[in-house]
Amino acid sequence: MINYDGFLSRAALSTKGSAIRKMGVMAVRVPDMISFAPGYPDPVSFAWQSFRLIAEELLSGADASTLQYGPTRGHRPLLDALHDILGARGITAAGDDLLVTTGSQQGLDLVGRALLDPGDVVLVELPAYTGAITAFRTTQATLVGVRQEADGIDVSDLEAVTARERAAGRRVRFLYVVANFQNPTGLLISREKRRRLLEWASRANVLIVEDDPYGALYFEDSATAEDTRPIKADDAEGRVIYLSSFSKTLAPGFRVAWITGPAPVVAKLEVIKQAADLLTPALDQHIVYEAVRRGVLAERLPMLRRLYQNKRTLMQQTLRAELGDLVTWPEPRGGFFLWVSLPAHLDADAMLERAVEQKVIYVAGSAFFVDGSGANLMRLSFSLPGEERIVEGVKRLAALIKQELVRQPATTA
Amino acid sequence: MINYDGFLSRAALSTKGSAIRKMGVMAVRVPDMISFAPGYPDPVSFAWQSFRLIAEELLSGADASTLQYGPTRGHRPLLDALHDILGARGITAAGDDLLVTTGSQQGLDLVGRALLDPGDVVLVELPAYTGAITAFRTTQATLVGVRQEADGIDVSDLEAVTARERAAGRRVRFLYVVANFQNPTGLLISREKRRRLLEWASRANVLIVEDDPYGALYFEDSATAEDTRPIKADDAEGRVIYLSSFSKTLAPGFRVAWITGPAPVVAKLEVIKQAADLLTPALDQHIVYEAVRRGVLAERLPMLRRLYQNKRTLMQQTLRAELGDLVTWPEPRGGFFLWVSLPAHLDADAMLERAVEQKVIYVAGSAFFVDGSGANLMRLSFSLPGEERIVEGVKRLAALIKQELVRQPATTA
Repeated sequence: MINYDGFLSRAALSTKGSAIRKMGVMAVRVPDMISFAPGYPDPVSFAWQSFRLIAEELLSGADASTLQYGPTRGHRPLLDALHDILGARGITAAGDDLLVTTGSQQGLDLVGRALLDPGDVVLVELPAYTGAITAFRTTQATLVGVRQEADGIDVSDLEAVTARERAAGRRVRFLYVVANFQNPTGLLISREKRRRLLEWASRANVLIVEDDPYGALYFEDSATAEDTRPIKADDAEGRVIYLSSFSKTLAPGFRVAWITGPAPVVAKLEVIKQAADLLTPALDQHIVYEAVRRGVLAERLPMLRRLYQNKRTLMQQTLRAELGDLVTWPEPRGGFFLWVSLPAHLDADAMLERAVEQKVIYVAGSAFFVDGSGANLMRLSFSLPGEERIVEGVKRLAALIKQELVRQPATTA
Repeated sequence: MINYDGFLSRAALSTKGSAIRKMGVMAVRVPDMISFAPGYPDPVSFAWQSFRLIAEELLSGADASTLQYGPTRGHRPLLDALHDILGARGITAAGDDLLVTTGSQQGLDLVGRALLDPGDVVLVELPAYTGAITAFRTTQATLVGVRQEADGIDVSDLEAVTARERAAGRRVRFLYVVANFQNPTGLLISREKRRRLLEWASRANVLIVEDDPYGALYFEDSATAEDTRPIKADDAEGRVIYLSSFSKTLAPGFRVAWITGPAPVVAKLEVIKQAADLLTPALDQHIVYEAVRRGVLAERLPMLRRLYQNKRTLMQQTLRAELGDLVTWPEPRGGFFLWVSLPAHLDADAMLERAVEQKVIYVAGSAFFVDGSGANLMRLSFSLPGEERIVEGVKRLAALIKQELVRQPATTA
């Protein structure tokens, strides 16, 4: 029997699977499991009827490009439509600073490969999105955490961490940030802080990678479109690389997202994408373009905002009713996630096995921390389950947490 | 103005765009251009009607997984169907040694990332597929060429090159090979030589990466299914990683391909794919699965073999009629390509500009050689153009070549 370790790259030897993906697979396999784990959109919200009509028309055979190889940059009409979408968010993108990607996960992977050498430092929020952590780590970069406050990343910690890393002789390449309804915390970075982040990037001479899958899904009871204005919109110097996606608003199965940034950087992303998968799937790009062109996306956004706002409210109400002050969380003003703090001595990782027995799952908070902290935190996605499942799932979770408190009473110091 | 070079990784700084992709883009832009450049399948051959019916049914909304996130490994029913497809090719794959990829280009990229560290050696054929060259080079590996003979790679050169690289202290990780109707030469590796390659891999303790996009498209006037039996089918030791695709038989716009190999290696490919794009597009996988399940693929293969065989024959006849003995090529017994040798003193790269003026393009042979040779070679794809375009394109090409011979008469030594 061959020992394949001898054939594997350092990246392969050091890479581990994602905790979220594992939870997703587990949830599918257990009957009656209620999953608050993966950040899946609600498929009831998908525009099935419109997609069916669009696919029927596209597959008439009249336009071979629907199923053919195509340009790595993306389907030309879709690129044009993306300029309009970006314009509405305050971002002026020229023709050559935009690239369609096979989901935002590919965007993150391309960014890592284009900007990182082994040993380089990427600054990420504490906590940060695991998909970004995984992508950047495959380059053998070092991920260093920066604290967050209620209005987003702590700029004085950001400065201190940057200075410390540089003093240690390491090269700080970029800050990765999810400014709108962050995954996992749901936090929204304030407008004042967005401005300060741009000033910091200029002063420190680093880039910012801004990942914005949730910006369009603000909750109208507590946020406005202006609150979600991307950092990129005010990026006069060309320091921000901006990613967004149709996965949360149209459907993730299409794998159509995009990235915009300085033209010389996007040109490199395109060349690496050539090596990575040649092109974003053609039929998917055509369907997404038609959904945008026909107004399917724009029409549905108010409905989606209400849908997820209502789910958030229901999950919050049920948590309060079941657990009172035992758990806390910052109220999300958009997005898919509730970031729950358990009593400090509880360990969400250790509880997971018993959660599966109770047929409810979440993602343990530690998965999102590059510094090994976060044991008493958990991410609950309210986006996928229906209302009854949210209520039932929170009840199961509340029962679990109460049992844990009996099992491990808090020790008084 | 920021100089972004200071922010780019070594991989990004050293990566260049693909010559084939550039030709593809150019061909689209010039009216009346006849392109023998990209290896595109003929869209007339796509099962438009079946795809339309399948998409209509899938987009009813009954099965949310059609547009949802899904497992990185692939859509479960498709994985099962792939076991049958592989079985028919003599390959027994267990449940955990198979991964669906976003096109074979992604498979190549994942292989490179899982197996190569900077400075490692990959052995490739002289000439070799540019997409593989590009993918492997992003890892900063060194690509070293091995000569080919009429029946495929030269095993004694393979042994000499391996010994030389090892003597120089470099680690030889794998041999990349396209055994069936190679891109760009169209060559078919003989059965005897396939056996010898396996013996060599065992003796030298290296892996073989076997890329097989064209195996199902053998030409019945000169080859049989048995001739295309993959090297992987006789791989008792677990030394072969095998890639194949639906891009040439169903349609490339779906981006659905697969890879099979030793389970520990495939597990690493899966983890890297998580970081690269999470999953292969769900709708595409569902459509491809249904096309396989309903027999759409199997039914069409005889038609596709005839279609491409006829195109090859027509291109060969026209070349002979127009150019007589001025050019030569090995007769392809399958696949998409004619690999044409021009008179030795002509330079296909230098001629390309004038070819564009004549409204005909090809890929200059040098793009396929990692050792800088191949100036008098060109790859002609006969797969995409219709019959009239093949005849007209070859006439334009013949006129160009004759003009070049007037422009640069052969010097007698």
